Amino acid sequence: MKVGFVGLGHMGSGMAASLLKAGHEVTVYNRTRAKAEPLIAQGARVVASIADACRDSAVITMLANDNAVEGLVLGKGGIIDSLPKGGIHISSSTISVALSEALAKVHAKAGQRFVAAPVFGRPNVAAAGQLFVIAAGSQDAIAAATPLFDAIGQKTFVVSETPKAANLVKLSGNFLIAVVIESLGEAMALVGKGGIGRHQYVDILTSTLFSAPVYKTYGALIADKKFSPAGFAAPLGQKDIRLTLAAAEELCVPLPLASLLRDRFLTLMAHGGDELDWSAIGGLAAKDAGEDG
Amino acid sequence: MKVGFVGLGHMGSGMAASLLKAGHEVTVYNRTRAKAEPLIAQGARVVASIADACRDSAVITMLANDNAVEGLVLGKGGIIDSLPKGGIHISSSTISVALSEALAKVHAKAGQRFVAAPVFGRPNVAAAGQLFVIAAGSQDAIAAATPLFDAIGQKTFVVSETPKAANLVKLSGNFLIAVVIESLGEAMALVGKGGIGRHQYVDILTSTLFSAPVYKTYGALIADKKFSPAGFAAPLGQKDIRLTLAAAEELCVPLPLASLLRDRFLTLMAHGGDELDWSAIGGLAAKDAGEDG
Amino acid sequence: MKVGFVGLGHMGSGMAASLLKAGHEVTVYNRTRAKAEPLIAQGARVVASIADACRDSAVITMLANDNAVEGLVLGKGGIIDSLPKGGIHISSSTISVALSEALAKVHAKAGQRFVAAPVFGRPNVAAAGQLFVIAAGSQDAIAAATPLFDAIGQKTFVVSETPKAANLVKLSGNFLIAVVIESLGEAMALVGKGGIGRHQYVDILTSTLFSAPVYKTYGALIADKKFSPAGFAAPLGQKDIRLTLAAAEELCVPLPLASLLRDRFLTLMAHGGDELDWSAIGGLAAKDAGEDG
Amino acid sequence: MKVGFVGLGHMGSGMAASLLKAGHEVTVYNRTRAKAEPLIAQGARVVASIADACRDSAVITMLANDNAVEGLVLGKGGIIDSLPKGGIHISSSTISVALSEALAKVHAKAGQRFVAAPVFGRPNVAAAGQLFVIAAGSQDAIAAATPLFDAIGQKTFVVSETPKAANLVKLSGNFLIAVVIESLGEAMALVGKGGIGRHQYVDILTSTLFSAPVYKTYGALIADKKFSPAGFAAPLGQKDIRLTLAAAEELCVPLPLASLLRDRFLTLMAHGGDELDWSAIGGLAAKDAGEDG
Repeated sequence: MKVGFVGLGHMGSGMAASLLKAGHEVTVYNRTRAKAEPLIAQGARVVASIADACRDSAVITMLANDNAVEGLVLGKGGIIDSLPKGGIHISSSTISVALSEALAKVHAKAGQRFVAAPVFGRPNVAAAGQLFVIAAGSQDAIAAATPLFDAIGQKTFVVSETPKAANLVKLSGNFLIAVVIESLGEAMALVGKGGIGRHQYVDILTSTLFSAPVYKTYGALIADKKFSPAGFAAPLGQKDIRLTLAAAEELCVPLPLASLLRDRFLTLMAHGGDELDWSAIGGLAAKDAGEDG
Repeated sequence: MKVGFVGLGHMGSGMAASLLKAGHEVTVYNRTRAKAEPLIAQGARVVASIADACRDSAVITMLANDNAVEGLVLGKGGIIDSLPKGGIHISSSTISVALSEALAKVHAKAGQRFVAAPVFGRPNVAAAGQLFVIAAGSQDAIAAATPLFDAIGQKTFVVSETPKAANLVKLSGNFLIAVVIESLGEAMALVGKGGIGRHQYVDILTSTLFSAPVYKTYGALIADKKFSPAGFAAPLGQKDIRLTLAAAEELCVPLPLASLLRDRFLTLMAHGGDELDWSAIGGLAAKDAGEDG
Repeated sequence: MKVGFVGLGHMGSGMAASLLKAGHEVTVYNRTRAKAEPLIAQGARVVASIADACRDSAVITMLANDNAVEGLVLGKGGIIDSLPKGGIHISSSTISVALSEALAKVHAKAGQRFVAAPVFGRPNVAAAGQLFVIAAGSQDAIAAATPLFDAIGQKTFVVSETPKAANLVKLSGNFLIAVVIESLGEAMALVGKGGIGRHQYVDILTSTLFSAPVYKTYGALIADKKFSPAGFAAPLGQKDIRLTLAAAEELCVPLPLASLLRDRFLTLMAHGGDELDWSAIGGLAAKDAGEDG
Repeated sequence: MKVGFVGLGHMGSGMAASLLKAGHEVTVYNRTRAKAEPLIAQGARVVASIADACRDSAVITMLANDNAVEGLVLGKGGIIDSLPKGGIHISSSTISVALSEALAKVHAKAGQRFVAAPVFGRPNVAAAGQLFVIAAGSQDAIAAATPLFDAIGQKTFVVSETPKAANLVKLSGNFLIAVVIESLGEAMALVGKGGIGRHQYVDILTSTLFSAPVYKTYGALIADKKFSPAGFAAPLGQKDIRLTLAAAEELCVPLPLASLLRDRFLTLMAHGGDELDWSAIGGLAAKDAGEDG
């Protein structure tokens, strides 16, 4: 397929590379052109405007947040202005449910199709084409986009015909990961003060009931108190909890755990945690328990 | 080895059977004798008093709560009165850190040895001899008990020379499971109200980041809202959170997640949840969100 | 003084009447003109456009929420377009700190002055000219507005030269009231289930340590479970907690109590509480404790 | 009346003095005899044993906690052993609901009467005979004790014929005060970071909606960050929240605010707050918000 790709950050670069590897013709655009260069060797065509990335029947966007997506899609010369009628905008960014709903509307009005397709996986997984894709949109659009999903991910879950549902699933997933971080932080504050070695504790947990990678990854970071450099920056985690709470508020769903996480992120930010990994909230319980930094 | 075994509930029966299977000579005692009968065919010797179960150099206890253990150990004709000097009491019950500490003291005073060896795993895992054993006690006692641990479990983690450390690890593990239940309850309340199928959602989670059995087991129960019959009864879960909070209070460790779980269990109990599985707290978020029963 | 007044709801009507009573020349505007009629007899001049209410050197606005204020101030033919250079916009509405900041900027750009002057007190207090005014703005603007504050309130507190500070104080005050409601709800759930009469309990509290009117007012409502008709509607309370949390997030201040209140309001809304008084959140603790509606 | 009085701490000394002032014949006992000396001049008879303080038809106890009360009442030569049949034990200590229930039983078994009569008010109020008395017990016992209540307090509230009900009311009152402290701490963390003067803020609150003394007292302490010396020590506040939670657990009443307070006290204790006033929990929100100690 011919497809445009906008947004070549850590995740986007890997996704675009996976598309190329699968044989798709990919036209890439990035605000900072330098980030596009490495893809040329892999066969990408680099263009200088969003419009030029929207000449084909589909364009994928992978950006940092609502603001970036809004600007890129709704701005003058943006995707709405540029994508042909019937074209598909596949949004893989982790954005708010509200923005996803708004985009679905404006695309429909413009005679275009909108698919939300956020992904689970870190940059190395993206580079390997092994992401999990959570997709939602009209059946025909999903069908058309499936070869692309197959290129970037190991499995695609179609959750709804309403795009925003996919964004909700994605946000809820990040919420669940943040809960794991907080729970490990509390448990380690407890057993640590009780004299048990933190690394042995993580080993016990992950060898027994908590074998999922998420416990291994974050358990190790919290046991090491190694929150820098950031794999996934704390402000991004804070944003995701904010968007989760916003979606929950819209649906009238109280989420006390998310409220607690919100407060943890604020505490972290109030103490200069902007540059840390989001797992740094897992160090706060130990601080409350009187442990030195 | 010759070993006594006291407490033949769902877990204890499986553990005693595993000991027999491994070739140990097991003398069993249970308040309700009928529960001991099935083990006779497997080679167990059934006795009519605690004292008779303490004739050998080691006795394992597996009981429901602090009260039961206290009565059995400290009561007249109990383990303290009956176990020979140098004998080892291996306590596998999920009891409070405070009681574990107290037992260690009285056993030491009586010239006996005390090992805390709580286990992770459900009754079927106990029957298969595949538990995980968390052990703490003096090195010599642990060494002496190792053949027994090998019989009941697939792996033993020695966490400390102070017995109560093992109980703390066990409690913290149940706390972490309860957090998983609550987090799944909240996430499903959210996505469910957002129109996503609950079973598909669990499938997505467990196929991707949350592959641990605990997410599968409890995700399914919460998606089905099937909280009866109880695999692990809510009052037992409530007890474990109570003991976690008590241990944390003693160590001055604030655990906001455990506080939240405490409130969830109280809400459940206030609405007649005594007979339900502890995963029923995972249904409360949906109720708060206005979902019918 | 000659002053415009926009927004004749329960609070605004009383405030405008107080201004008239104090001898000020008041030009009133309300979207629904009928609400202005009663003030004519008291000497008010009713006009048909916002612009006409902005002919003098000062205009007071008292509206329901951010949206209403934004539309009225920034919309075509709104206050920014209409107020003379050097004119003062006195905003008494309970609005977000962010909007207050934005208004200060646009007014400054338009050569106008902006004073935030939210008030404490219910409609009957407004009608009696006995409100408490929390004011913030430039010294000269505050000085110019003082005769107006004296007319509507019994006391004015000048808290800052930055307008948004007054809005923050107002929001924090409503937050504190909501905490009182929640705390009374929990305490009454407890003592009620313990067999103590709820009305006697409120009597004890308010005769002893908790003599402030807020305990009397809300204690009685909660004891009676009389949450309708709404004196202050639940969605407005919810909005104020939302704005408090937004301001706190901007300042990186975790407010666990506000998070709890947020969840209470969501639970209330999820169960159809839109029409109830905000004190209805004070009934939720009893419900969690198993008390019938 | 002739009455014994046991426990001459800050509160008890003032209460005993008030009884003397009102003309009662008071026999006092205190473990540390020196504390009894000042009362001799006011007419008290000092005795050397609990038994000697129980010779009359009534004895009042005012002690620090459950342990002290239990020892004194149930211990050898204690009140149960010493009080004549039909005698009344009036317990003014802030004790657990469970202990109050237990005392009622043992006194009944011993043919004695038990009245719970905890009080609201600080030591200076006790010295002035202006306490508020919350009383519960059988009608005849309450009637008999009324002259004593009239001497120590300005008003007596009889809440139930079951003694423990009075203890529940007392605990709930301290819970409500602790909530006020926490809420002021959060509000001041917020407005303080927003640039508003903390003292002016307290002045605004207490001049307007929050006129109750409890807001004045604790608002000033928190604004000053003056948590030492302790008027009411943090461990006592922590104890009262613990007892509130215990009573609530027994009654199946979730109290999220009390859970939050519990965690605040643990954080305080983990950072060496044992010697501080309990209002020091009101300084924690500001710390979480990044304010320097």
